[in-house]
Amino acid sequence: MNFASDNTAGAHPDIMAAIVAANEGRTMPYGHDDGTEAARQRVCEVFETEAKVFFVPTGTAANGLAVASITPSWGALVCHETAHIFDHEGNGPVMYSGGARLIGLPGENGKLTPDSVEAATLEGRGDEHYSQVRAVSVTQLTEKGTAYRVDEIAAIGAVCRKHGLALHMDGARFANALAGLNCSPADMSWKAGVDVLSFGGTKNGALALEAVVVFNPALGEEFLYRQKRAGHVLSKMRLMTAQMEAYLADDLWLKNARHSNAMARKLADGLKALGVEIIGDVDGNQVFPRLPAPMAEALKAEGFLFYDRGADDQGRRKTRLVTAFNTPEDDVDAFLATATMAAV
Amino acid sequence: MNFASDNTAGAHPDIMAAIVAANEGRTMPYGHDDGTEAARQRVCEVFETEAKVFFVPTGTAANGLAVASITPSWGALVCHETAHIFDHEGNGPVMYSGGARLIGLPGENGKLTPDSVEAATLEGRGDEHYSQVRAVSVTQLTEKGTAYRVDEIAAIGAVCRKHGLALHMDGARFANALAGLNCSPADMSWKAGVDVLSFGGTKNGALALEAVVVFNPALGEEFLYRQKRAGHVLSKMRLMTAQMEAYLADDLWLKNARHSNAMARKLADGLKALGVEIIGDVDGNQVFPRLPAPMAEALKAEGFLFYDRGADDQGRRKTRLVTAFNTPEDDVDAFLATATMAAV
Amino acid sequence: MNFASDNTAGAHPDIMAAIVAANEGRTMPYGHDDGTEAARQRVCEVFETEAKVFFVPTGTAANGLAVASITPSWGALVCHETAHIFDHEGNGPVMYSGGARLIGLPGENGKLTPDSVEAATLEGRGDEHYSQVRAVSVTQLTEKGTAYRVDEIAAIGAVCRKHGLALHMDGARFANALAGLNCSPADMSWKAGVDVLSFGGTKNGALALEAVVVFNPALGEEFLYRQKRAGHVLSKMRLMTAQMEAYLADDLWLKNARHSNAMARKLADGLKALGVEIIGDVDGNQVFPRLPAPMAEALKAEGFLFYDRGADDQGRRKTRLVTAFNTPEDDVDAFLATATMAAV
Amino acid sequence: MNFASDNTAGAHPDIMAAIVAANEGRTMPYGHDDGTEAARQRVCEVFETEAKVFFVPTGTAANGLAVASITPSWGALVCHETAHIFDHEGNGPVMYSGGARLIGLPGENGKLTPDSVEAATLEGRGDEHYSQVRAVSVTQLTEKGTAYRVDEIAAIGAVCRKHGLALHMDGARFANALAGLNCSPADMSWKAGVDVLSFGGTKNGALALEAVVVFNPALGEEFLYRQKRAGHVLSKMRLMTAQMEAYLADDLWLKNARHSNAMARKLADGLKALGVEIIGDVDGNQVFPRLPAPMAEALKAEGFLFYDRGADDQGRRKTRLVTAFNTPEDDVDAFLATATMAAV
Repeated sequence: MNFASDNTAGAHPDIMAAIVAANEGRTMPYGHDDGTEAARQRVCEVFETEAKVFFVPTGTAANGLAVASITPSWGALVCHETAHIFDHEGNGPVMYSGGARLIGLPGENGKLTPDSVEAATLEGRGDEHYSQVRAVSVTQLTEKGTAYRVDEIAAIGAVCRKHGLALHMDGARFANALAGLNCSPADMSWKAGVDVLSFGGTKNGALALEAVVVFNPALGEEFLYRQKRAGHVLSKMRLMTAQMEAYLADDLWLKNARHSNAMARKLADGLKALGVEIIGDVDGNQVFPRLPAPMAEALKAEGFLFYDRGADDQGRRKTRLVTAFNTPEDDVDAFLATATMAAV
Repeated sequence: MNFASDNTAGAHPDIMAAIVAANEGRTMPYGHDDGTEAARQRVCEVFETEAKVFFVPTGTAANGLAVASITPSWGALVCHETAHIFDHEGNGPVMYSGGARLIGLPGENGKLTPDSVEAATLEGRGDEHYSQVRAVSVTQLTEKGTAYRVDEIAAIGAVCRKHGLALHMDGARFANALAGLNCSPADMSWKAGVDVLSFGGTKNGALALEAVVVFNPALGEEFLYRQKRAGHVLSKMRLMTAQMEAYLADDLWLKNARHSNAMARKLADGLKALGVEIIGDVDGNQVFPRLPAPMAEALKAEGFLFYDRGADDQGRRKTRLVTAFNTPEDDVDAFLATATMAAV
Repeated sequence: MNFASDNTAGAHPDIMAAIVAANEGRTMPYGHDDGTEAARQRVCEVFETEAKVFFVPTGTAANGLAVASITPSWGALVCHETAHIFDHEGNGPVMYSGGARLIGLPGENGKLTPDSVEAATLEGRGDEHYSQVRAVSVTQLTEKGTAYRVDEIAAIGAVCRKHGLALHMDGARFANALAGLNCSPADMSWKAGVDVLSFGGTKNGALALEAVVVFNPALGEEFLYRQKRAGHVLSKMRLMTAQMEAYLADDLWLKNARHSNAMARKLADGLKALGVEIIGDVDGNQVFPRLPAPMAEALKAEGFLFYDRGADDQGRRKTRLVTAFNTPEDDVDAFLATATMAAV
Repeated sequence: MNFASDNTAGAHPDIMAAIVAANEGRTMPYGHDDGTEAARQRVCEVFETEAKVFFVPTGTAANGLAVASITPSWGALVCHETAHIFDHEGNGPVMYSGGARLIGLPGENGKLTPDSVEAATLEGRGDEHYSQVRAVSVTQLTEKGTAYRVDEIAAIGAVCRKHGLALHMDGARFANALAGLNCSPADMSWKAGVDVLSFGGTKNGALALEAVVVFNPALGEEFLYRQKRAGHVLSKMRLMTAQMEAYLADDLWLKNARHSNAMARKLADGLKALGVEIIGDVDGNQVFPRLPAPMAEALKAEGFLFYDRGADDQGRRKTRLVTAFNTPEDDVDAFLATATMAAV
């Protein structure tokens, strides 16, 4: 009964089946095969636009290469101070960009605002002592479990247009955000001004697959060269890209996300009913409860796994619960039952 | 009937089955799971030593990160001028090292010699105008299809010890070389002075898996940090590392290599019998025939795929044939039959 | 009447004379000359220890190369959030290190504390998702015009020893701090745990010369290779290093620093007497007054140059005044006279 | 009597005087002063065009930053295998570019040819396994002492235009080449297709000054940011840029170059008269004689300094003689007298 991470799940059976099915016959390596091309087309269809699409095995790869493709080595990128790229990816985006600066800004609910982005952009603009801001990255879902609304993204996108910045979206949990917002993939990305998207698959049921989707036609010409030298062009690419077709077929990705979101919602509602405070909105598959210490203890004693980042000033545990595409509802029920017992 | 690359094959069924089997239940992500630890132990057993073992999805990743771990940014690494790292990996090792120099040396049969390594090391040694040689990389099999003998590696290893250089082996086709040499994995690596090995799996039957094996205890402490920031720590790592156990179980890797080597040998012998010159020794699964132009044409017309790098000064085609773990003997027979027809 | 920066002054006449004098005859280039060796020895004498000494033309070069020499590409360095290296050097230290992370911490008076350094070091220690802290940098004088006391440096040095971190000091205004503290150069550097020092000359009277002084014998072996590739080994090095001998001769450097400190002190005292608040201690040649807006206007109208970073919440101007080795006392008197007029 | 390098000379007295003269009063730092702007304008006038001009203290800095400004990190630059940037600058251009590849080509007289450049450009073009050629660098004078004729440069420039490559010229000895060719600075640079020039001053009489001249208006917008982070924006910039005005005033730079060229010519003619073979044309201030061993010995015994790179297969010494702007004709006469004695 694992609520530690959506990465603890394996791959969805349909996706695994697609890999096995693709393992027949011989195809040209390194992505120069018909199946990979079909996967690219499928992504474009889902986003209702012609985009350049590249497939990599991890989110850190997607983010690092995407950031490098829009941030010059002498430039800077603005992101939220809780962004995964800022301090959870070993400074990979900085390495890939050749030494650009990441500027982590505070902001409520894990979100940047148009004003905070603009202020950071203008500080030291044109002054050679400062790294010049040329890019922005938003995380959707944020690391606080919240989702930017489409108009919030568009407002940041407008600042980017105004100042000549490229806009990246780290969509490791794109599907979870989308399922919660009830808008189209296009609405939540390029129509709102996103130039480059890290389109997550792994956390939502793939074995190891993320796509970098370059919407801005002026970008991405050199992406494949960056990807290759980084070792992220898989030789038996077809076996990887088969995942994407299964992921997008019959809305599997949305079904997966809706399930994990529903499980998170159920956890949140159940805990709230017990008087537990939930920090921030639950817009996807992450819940940040402040559990009373005895409740946290009881849950751990029952074998529930989750992150506990210590006590707050009221002695409550700062915890994170993450649900996955295949989190059994029984696990959620069992969690809430134990919590209820402890709450009495 | 594809002799273009060993990457055109899919994964071996046993390896695919292992991935599917690993896709049960939940495990901690990022390689912090028992199965991955077991795979590490298995590699150590095969090499008869305690080593640090890291798993990455591509050979370019293995090489780039391995080179970076032994070559300081202000240093240089000596390799053969045909080495894959020198001009087929988009300069990835240079990026990962932070700007080190790769020095590509000529040499017969695709091999470095102790003398060539030493001479390159001493040129500009201690002179700040020169990048300082601190590492050497040998490719086993070489890009010319030949294998270094154990004593040849050991002689280069001795030069490395003498001058304080680290020795890397690009073993993308380690198994093919080993199968041909009839020695132990330990003999061909650390016992001959290899400090860090890129231990290939993908070309020999894995879906996407290579191990970096760090034999020298003084090295590798920081490897995981490099791997993470590069995006090469897979979140659902267990599904990847399951490949390694199947690969090494019941000598599958050696059986695979013996088969592809035998198919290459059969191709070479058959062509020689037709009077075709084969360039270099056939120590593994690569054959470099100089095909008479009509023979090359006839083979292409029949649908045989292989690399043709143009005509030599006698008008013969400079071709490369590569066999895989699952190359059907029928394909080889058919190839030779067509060649025989064309030779008449 | 320029209080904008100590860089607006030219070189001290004695230093210029030394350059002219060195421009006789022929010497071997790139620092392989007797005069440069003598300059190195002179630095060692002043610091009462055997150290490796390298000469570069700018403080940004000194800092960038020094940081790179102690911070691995996959590592992190802790500094104050106002540190020059953090956001005023175009992210140069990050470029030179190959993509390390700079972690800027808050702290009163522009200073790090042992506790803040230790907490930042332990966050994510051993977790591959985090850049690993391996170095610390203190700025002496700080960017707030204050000086670390020797015991404050030593306390940070102790944390560094405890956790295996290297300690860098950005001593662009080392002389000004030293003159204020009345201790020896050794006390304020290696005896307090500093491993590598950027020893400033330019702001205190040199034309363009800084030394990187590597006290820790385990460090610096590769420094010259980094320096050369960066283009910071001057070919006619002798003409540069001649500055250092003049700088250190007859305590010129300390006399220069004492003068600029005294002028800063006089400015501060004069302004305080007028009721102007001075932010932080005036430990060197920088003063941060909150000038009433009419006073600031009056001073600007009289042609006094200084940085004005906008209004605080009481409408006072956040200004910085910097004095130089050759700031005429008459300029200070004139400044205070104008301020007095405006204060009435 | 030093023929080892043109760097063994000090600065020309006029240039030193200009520095001293500039050391009056106070100017805004970091190149934001009128004098530096005037120096930029003077360079533009000499080249008869509007260009972006940046001043740095060394040739390695000029080359490294110039290469980085035209070669993407994932790209490659073609140069001659003897080029200074290829193996005498500690791989600095590779560091500054973020890991680009330098491809060193063979070629007679130290020169690239249009055909060799085109062939290298097309190898692997569009194939992600190869670093993509995006730039070319020619060295004028070459490292073999020869000068490209204007039509030779233009022919390479035409290949660059055809394939979308930027053309850099390493003009560390630009003046010596120009003096020999009797053409205008514009003819030998932008009119022949050069996009970015490292315009040398130091070897020809400056203390420490090179200019990077960006002719192509589409390039160089970001140069200052690169220069700053590298530590190559000098704070007291005015004292550096004063050199350039003196250098270009009254054709001092050309007079200096003509003198050193004449001294080299006299050395070459004198040695030829003694039957000594001179390798390559003497187009500037470098002479490559194959000295009989006894003659080399006699010269060294008399205290003449020059590089001796060992014996050729006939036992002759492979030597290099370099003259400077202030090489006394008496030194040349004495050299030839000693050589004549030894030749008898």
